[in-house]
Amino acid sequence: MGKLKVALIGGGGPGNFFGHVHKRAIALDNSRELVAGALRSDPREAIAAAADYDVTGYASHSALLEAVQKGDQPLDYVTIVTPNHAHYEPAKAFVEAGIPVLCEKPVTMTVEEAEDLQRRVEARGVPFVLAHTYTGHPMMMLAKEMVRQGRIGQVRKIEAFYNQGWLATALETEGLQQAEWRTDPSRTGISNCGGDIGTHAFIAATWVGGHSVKRVSARLNAFVDGRVLDDDFNVIAELDNGGTAVITATQIAVGYKNDHGFRIYGNEGSLEWHQEQAESLLVRTGEVDETYWIGGNFSFFPESVASYLRLPSGHHDDFFGALANLHTSLERLIRRGRGEDAPEAFDHPGAAEGVAGMRFVKAAVDSSAAGGVWTDL
Amino acid sequence: MGKLKVALIGGGGPGNFFGHVHKRAIALDNSRELVAGALRSDPREAIAAAADYDVTGYASHSALLEAVQKGDQPLDYVTIVTPNHAHYEPAKAFVEAGIPVLCEKPVTMTVEEAEDLQRRVEARGVPFVLAHTYTGHPMMMLAKEMVRQGRIGQVRKIEAFYNQGWLATALETEGLQQAEWRTDPSRTGISNCGGDIGTHAFIAATWVGGHSVKRVSARLNAFVDGRVLDDDFNVIAELDNGGTAVITATQIAVGYKNDHGFRIYGNEGSLEWHQEQAESLLVRTGEVDETYWIGGNFSFFPESVASYLRLPSGHHDDFFGALANLHTSLERLIRRGRGEDAPEAFDHPGAAEGVAGMRFVKAAVDSSAAGGVWTDL
Amino acid sequence: MGKLKVALIGGGGPGNFFGHVHKRAIALDNSRELVAGALRSDPREAIAAAADYDVTGYASHSALLEAVQKGDQPLDYVTIVTPNHAHYEPAKAFVEAGIPVLCEKPVTMTVEEAEDLQRRVEARGVPFVLAHTYTGHPMMMLAKEMVRQGRIGQVRKIEAFYNQGWLATALETEGLQQAEWRTDPSRTGISNCGGDIGTHAFIAATWVGGHSVKRVSARLNAFVDGRVLDDDFNVIAELDNGGTAVITATQIAVGYKNDHGFRIYGNEGSLEWHQEQAESLLVRTGEVDETYWIGGNFSFFPESVASYLRLPSGHHDDFFGALANLHTSLERLIRRGRGEDAPEAFDHPGAAEGVAGMRFVKAAVDSSAAGGVWTDL
Amino acid sequence: MGKLKVALIGGGGPGNFFGHVHKRAIALDNSRELVAGALRSDPREAIAAAADYDVTGYASHSALLEAVQKGDQPLDYVTIVTPNHAHYEPAKAFVEAGIPVLCEKPVTMTVEEAEDLQRRVEARGVPFVLAHTYTGHPMMMLAKEMVRQGRIGQVRKIEAFYNQGWLATALETEGLQQAEWRTDPSRTGISNCGGDIGTHAFIAATWVGGHSVKRVSARLNAFVDGRVLDDDFNVIAELDNGGTAVITATQIAVGYKNDHGFRIYGNEGSLEWHQEQAESLLVRTGEVDETYWIGGNFSFFPESVASYLRLPSGHHDDFFGALANLHTSLERLIRRGRGEDAPEAFDHPGAAEGVAGMRFVKAAVDSSAAGGVWTDL
Repeated sequence: MGKLKVALIGGGGPGNFFGHVHKRAIALDNSRELVAGALRSDPREAIAAAADYDVTGYASHSALLEAVQKGDQPLDYVTIVTPNHAHYEPAKAFVEAGIPVLCEKPVTMTVEEAEDLQRRVEARGVPFVLAHTYTGHPMMMLAKEMVRQGRIGQVRKIEAFYNQGWLATALETEGLQQAEWRTDPSRTGISNCGGDIGTHAFIAATWVGGHSVKRVSARLNAFVDGRVLDDDFNVIAELDNGGTAVITATQIAVGYKNDHGFRIYGNEGSLEWHQEQAESLLVRTGEVDETYWIGGNFSFFPESVASYLRLPSGHHDDFFGALANLHTSLERLIRRGRGEDAPEAFDHPGAAEGVAGMRFVKAAVDSSAAGGVWTDL
Repeated sequence: MGKLKVALIGGGGPGNFFGHVHKRAIALDNSRELVAGALRSDPREAIAAAADYDVTGYASHSALLEAVQKGDQPLDYVTIVTPNHAHYEPAKAFVEAGIPVLCEKPVTMTVEEAEDLQRRVEARGVPFVLAHTYTGHPMMMLAKEMVRQGRIGQVRKIEAFYNQGWLATALETEGLQQAEWRTDPSRTGISNCGGDIGTHAFIAATWVGGHSVKRVSARLNAFVDGRVLDDDFNVIAELDNGGTAVITATQIAVGYKNDHGFRIYGNEGSLEWHQEQAESLLVRTGEVDETYWIGGNFSFFPESVASYLRLPSGHHDDFFGALANLHTSLERLIRRGRGEDAPEAFDHPGAAEGVAGMRFVKAAVDSSAAGGVWTDL
Repeated sequence: MGKLKVALIGGGGPGNFFGHVHKRAIALDNSRELVAGALRSDPREAIAAAADYDVTGYASHSALLEAVQKGDQPLDYVTIVTPNHAHYEPAKAFVEAGIPVLCEKPVTMTVEEAEDLQRRVEARGVPFVLAHTYTGHPMMMLAKEMVRQGRIGQVRKIEAFYNQGWLATALETEGLQQAEWRTDPSRTGISNCGGDIGTHAFIAATWVGGHSVKRVSARLNAFVDGRVLDDDFNVIAELDNGGTAVITATQIAVGYKNDHGFRIYGNEGSLEWHQEQAESLLVRTGEVDETYWIGGNFSFFPESVASYLRLPSGHHDDFFGALANLHTSLERLIRRGRGEDAPEAFDHPGAAEGVAGMRFVKAAVDSSAAGGVWTDL
Repeated sequence: MGKLKVALIGGGGPGNFFGHVHKRAIALDNSRELVAGALRSDPREAIAAAADYDVTGYASHSALLEAVQKGDQPLDYVTIVTPNHAHYEPAKAFVEAGIPVLCEKPVTMTVEEAEDLQRRVEARGVPFVLAHTYTGHPMMMLAKEMVRQGRIGQVRKIEAFYNQGWLATALETEGLQQAEWRTDPSRTGISNCGGDIGTHAFIAATWVGGHSVKRVSARLNAFVDGRVLDDDFNVIAELDNGGTAVITATQIAVGYKNDHGFRIYGNEGSLEWHQEQAESLLVRTGEVDETYWIGGNFSFFPESVASYLRLPSGHHDDFFGALANLHTSLERLIRRGRGEDAPEAFDHPGAAEGVAGMRFVKAAVDSSAAGGVWTDL
């Protein structure tokens, strides 16, 4: 089994950061390698940027695809890290060509695009993983398994949150590019805070908690003067089993970095996790609080999670490990599809979760605009 | 300056607990003493219960008041710890007689009673403290002062919460008295979880944050089969300055004890406090997280808080100290009213906060019943 | 059962602090009351100081004792809070008179005095409690019980520590009285840091761990220029079962307050406790870390500890509660000695532990002076 | 600047783990690649094992060196992960050939070998990094810089520790290979616990603290029946500036994983770090405790550390990142030696630190055997 060959769509601009993060995650496991890229929207710049990544450069994702289809460019999957509005086109093209995709979130700009993409993914049966990186953290995976196995009984209530402070001031007026496009509706869509980090809280609530959201009542705020889009996002959601999820996100919490996590309350126990201390999971089922730590040697990990662990206990494998785990899931789907011997892939988010997230943000925006009325997804 | 003489109204039943907590708090500072009580509703039992407290027993609060007015019973103030529905009558009677009151929360059963009481308190100018015990924690007092002094700039968003797990199962059907009356509308009023602990979160949001709530959108749940009243309480609130408060409380979070606290986000900084680790306050105003600890020797305490501290740093003074601080505030109001030399009382909650809390719970109940529509207080 | 009547020996100087702490602890449980005092060494000042405490003043502990023996002063026990060099005389006098004593630590100035006192206590059979306040913390009591019950198997190693920073600079030259007498051999004895806080670490190691120290190898430092006595204290100790204890204390750890605690490693499990977060105890016996919290409603507390708890879980009862628990133990010994109905007293430190602590400090001082050679206690 | 080409010496046995950890760390930054290996001591197995790593296999390190010297195998540096007794020979050979080395710790089996190696490294001027992985953690690097810049004044005392529990039972008798060779003097040398993890605590004390150890007083224990070598290691050390370091390590702390860290007390401040929460550093210089978090966007990082950071704040880069940082330091030394444009390498441990560590363990073993007498390094 040679290394899987990966191409990057996007990631080539000056100061671009996340393409390089994926490059590290791809490299981490020594079973994948980045070999090609269509790294920028401008064809000439796209080819020039390939030097930064030490890969074969293509002028566009179409050019890359053509080379693959001609047999000139070996390729096992693509990773899409373009700006949000430019996810849909390449995702659709590669899916239609039967080439697996690992796509940054949000999956698309609109619900309609997301639904269309989901249909294509399902029709073609092509592996598709949505890069909700936090879902690659083993303790979050363990939490999902614990819920699934009934460890905390029936889920009643979920609190999922993501508190940041980086947009507490109008950085978009001070030349910070990242702030400019995040707060610009033409590039970001209908929601800034909700779309960017509220979706992480949504995925935490629904993917770990195991229930979908039926309807929401929301209040979105734009606290910083001059902002059109939300920088604060508060949702009360009804789950399909009658439970309630309180899903909150903010970008104006001064001094908070990536304070993301969840508390899930079942009728027999509770789970709590914080991504800034990703290596532990708090479990409460009786009088004594229990802390579970990551570690390949611990017997409490089901095989579905254990097969992703890289280190014994006490030494932690954090952000790159989590992102690499999503690549690993896609890699496993690909290898098993080919009949190679690989462990089963964990049930990481895909196109369906992308659609649900888009619907969730849209319903929240609509509910907030309508004065908090309950709005179906 | 001799000790202030205190009487207890309520607190005398078998298994009663909170009367004894007040007795300890009264004793802690050696400047007050419990001398009398009208401890139960049944006159004979009321007198019999006095032995448990080693005080002079009275058949009723009226009998006690009569003795005071006749000059037979020296008394400086009363502490009311009767069941919720029996706060209003004695509070009104003693206020009307000009006798200061420290009253357990909720102040009354209905908004109307609360408003009536507030009018009387203001008309008579009699000291009245509402026993929101957590507000007696010095780090919560420090947080209020920091907000007031502009340390975190303008308040934008507040998250205030109270998570408990003790009512995750139907203990009210298993003979637990405390669970029986909490879940019984005739004794508890329109809200169980909201009235009992949601009000603590409300006070944390408004008293520390320094802004009142204008209107709310709420979802209340009764997760345990057979319950009429809420055991889960979720509110999105609009503050008078346009800010948002997310106020949540639950009694079904298995394994959570009294996980109460707040995060307050201003445009220049953030504060975070957890009552289960009451002795520290987290302050974020820049790149480095700061932890402030309790301690009489720390210069960062303004005199308004420092005058309540009993110990130097490193040794903690927790629940009884917090409750005693409310007694101290009332004591200071009384002594200063008499021209005695006493430090200024901290601005602890009183009748007005009691009214606000009642209105908040009522608005939340109404909003939830009406499908989450925004409801004015 | 009326309240026990207590007298204070010492505690009356201007700025004196710990006498008032005991007064609060005596008052906390409403079953004891401070009624008399011999509060200062100067007879006239001693009587004058009684007003501060609102008690009957005596010119000396002898005068108090005489009044008690004449039947003029009802008294159940005395609390000795004089400077270290003035513990022995009143302790001896009251013990000889058959009056129970709660004595501040260190029990005396020399090993010989301590041994003499222990003999008298045992000969007279009079209740005697040594005020190692931390041993009154319920989670430290629970730890002792867990060790005793074999929860962690055989004890192999103990780390006990106490880190403070308040003497990191030469405060004794800047007029701070507390620093002056602590660093003055004539008032403090042969060791400052070891005697003051090293003994707390010693008690944590031996009282909780259940084994005595046989011999020690030590290094004491006086880091601040001009100091004669140690401000830093490091001991490796051999336990009577062959185990090792590392017992360290320091007063030069800038910014540390009262960072006292222990880790105890048995062959089947480990315990860890930190007094600055006194309400929880960490237990490790397998793959999952367990946190036990204080709370009168928890079934894991043996009755020996449960009978000292004042609050249900989630509300904490800290320093005053711990000190009050030592008074409670003495109270129980007194009441049971009289045939009154009281729970059994917990096995809190007494004269024997006082002697052991004195021997420990002396052996450490000797070992350090001799270049770290192993020195028997 | 192409990727540096790396060879692995050792790491090829069945169940070998740490060779693969290095492989991940080499891959993480996309600027290095593993290309060759002499992976086992048996020549045939060595070549066979190359398939696991997907590299060119050699029968021995000599064969690899020969190929390099003939120009048949491009190579920039070697990473030595053989068993402890097999570090010295290949390290010497490659150093003598002028090929840079990243060598696992302990550097050799004896002080004499280590000294010899240090002389050769210095004589040849060849880059040599010792794989004390924890020193690659950016917050540990920041701590070293803070000490160096005088942030906490003069260092007085250091506590450095490493608590593990995995050898609390006789796993060496139950077939666990890792436990077998660790407890076997012929393969491990004179010390198990001290050599394996006590050296990490030693490096934390001296490398971060900036002072060497002059002499030690030690007590080593072998708690588990049948063990010849220490499984518990306790040292009081004298620093070259008169300060004291308490250096402890244990393998019998049931339930502790890799509880490694330090507290450093200067006359103006204190630092505290725990490797299991590697992303934060506690700084105390006054009344308020400060927590510094990792994050490429924080201005408090000096460039010497900032140039190693891979992620902005709030997302953590842990064990692989730390190990990769040591590879990065070696890479920088190599590139700058060639005149390539690379940031300055951080002052990570090298041969001299290896010698110091060997001397420290030997002195501790001798001191303990001689009854704790102070023993010079």
